[in-house]
Amino acid sequence: MTVETKTFSIHTKPYCDVINITDQVHNAVRESSMESGIVNVHVAGSTGAISTVEYEPGLVSHDIKNLLEKLIPYNDRYRHHETWHDYNGAGHLRSFLIKTSQVFPFKNQKLILGTWQQIIFIECDEKARSRKIYCMVVGD
Amino acid sequence: MTVETKTFSIHTKPYCDVINITDQVHNAVRESSMESGIVNVHVAGSTGAISTVEYEPGLVSHDIKNLLEKLIPYNDRYRHHETWHDYNGAGHLRSFLIKTSQVFPFKNQKLILGTWQQIIFIECDEKARSRKIYCMVVGD
Amino acid sequence: MTVETKTFSIHTKPYCDVINITDQVHNAVRESSMESGIVNVHVAGSTGAISTVEYEPGLVSHDIKNLLEKLIPYNDRYRHHETWHDYNGAGHLRSFLIKTSQVFPFKNQKLILGTWQQIIFIECDEKARSRKIYCMVVGD
Repeated sequence: MTVETKTFSIHTKPYCDVINITDQVHNAVRESSMESGIVNVHVAGSTGAISTVEYEPGLVSHDIKNLLEKLIPYNDRYRHHETWHDYNGAGHLRSFLIKTSQVFPFKNQKLILGTWQQIIFIECDEKARSRKIYCMVVGD
Repeated sequence: MTVETKTFSIHTKPYCDVINITDQVHNAVRESSMESGIVNVHVAGSTGAISTVEYEPGLVSHDIKNLLEKLIPYNDRYRHHETWHDYNGAGHLRSFLIKTSQVFPFKNQKLILGTWQQIIFIECDEKARSRKIYCMVVGD
Repeated sequence: MTVETKTFSIHTKPYCDVINITDQVHNAVRESSMESGIVNVHVAGSTGAISTVEYEPGLVSHDIKNLLEKLIPYNDRYRHHETWHDYNGAGHLRSFLIKTSQVFPFKNQKLILGTWQQIIFIECDEKARSRKIYCMVVGD
């Protein structure tokens, strides 16, 4: 039983860029010395988020954007803007709601995911960003 | 310190069936060789979800359904439908928002939950499904 | 590799009190015997929630409250109220949606968080509560 930290970086576009990071997480698991266990996929920051979705253009480029825009519109007035005079209040709230991490199981060095299920990073900020993703692998 | 995988299956009804899986998760913990640790409860798929709730008929059969129908209506138009000509765009978005897994602690082979807190699977698809749930148990 | 349980208590105010618990989680990690691993931060109960946010007054005292009030208003009619004749249906639904736990990685006994990212407990109930938070630390 052991624990290993793997990291990778991605470059994002602003306003709800949805990036498929399944391969990078899979690599983190395969580069570890472990056969089975769990991996905590985590972004250190308050305007990014981690979840899963079927990675196809309809959901990725339209439906997720429309849903989040309905729930937490970018152009609303947020009190956060008065604190710092920046404009990413919606980004913070989206990250708060979806959350910055998720834990996935793996077996025989393979992530246990559905056929149509991919791990995604959601850029919630209104700026393009470089993001470092942490994969904390715990297992045998 | 070790890791063990337990699975169980459930049969679901379409459109927001909410199923109490606390006993099955508890059994997974008790059938393991571990006294304390964490269990990652996970569905492999992109139209199911895991969370907790007080499992009583008001919340389970009405309030959760109404909330999700308000946030992500089944009969809305989703671009996902144009990709595959199926009609579960809302199911994918509900699974994306609530997420497909949650991690729970246990001690003395007992899940640490509130008195009124049950672990639930939420069927977000518009078809009845057979679902396999993974419990990855990590502990001592 | 080992697992240790740490707990701490907080006192909350009703209706969306947002409390910064980063220091307490950090202490749980430092008081453990582990250098690196993951910590599952969890509330046993069905009307509390755990997430992260930049802990500044605009987001904490206004934007999060407004968002949750828009998505799940306290004064709506919930069927949960008919079951028990209490009035915390919104609290249960908020806890269901945001969830009662999140897992964080740590290294060199330090939580891996963004500069502006704090771990928060959200009181969703309509009563002031005393809450026990569990930190299940798993690592090396």
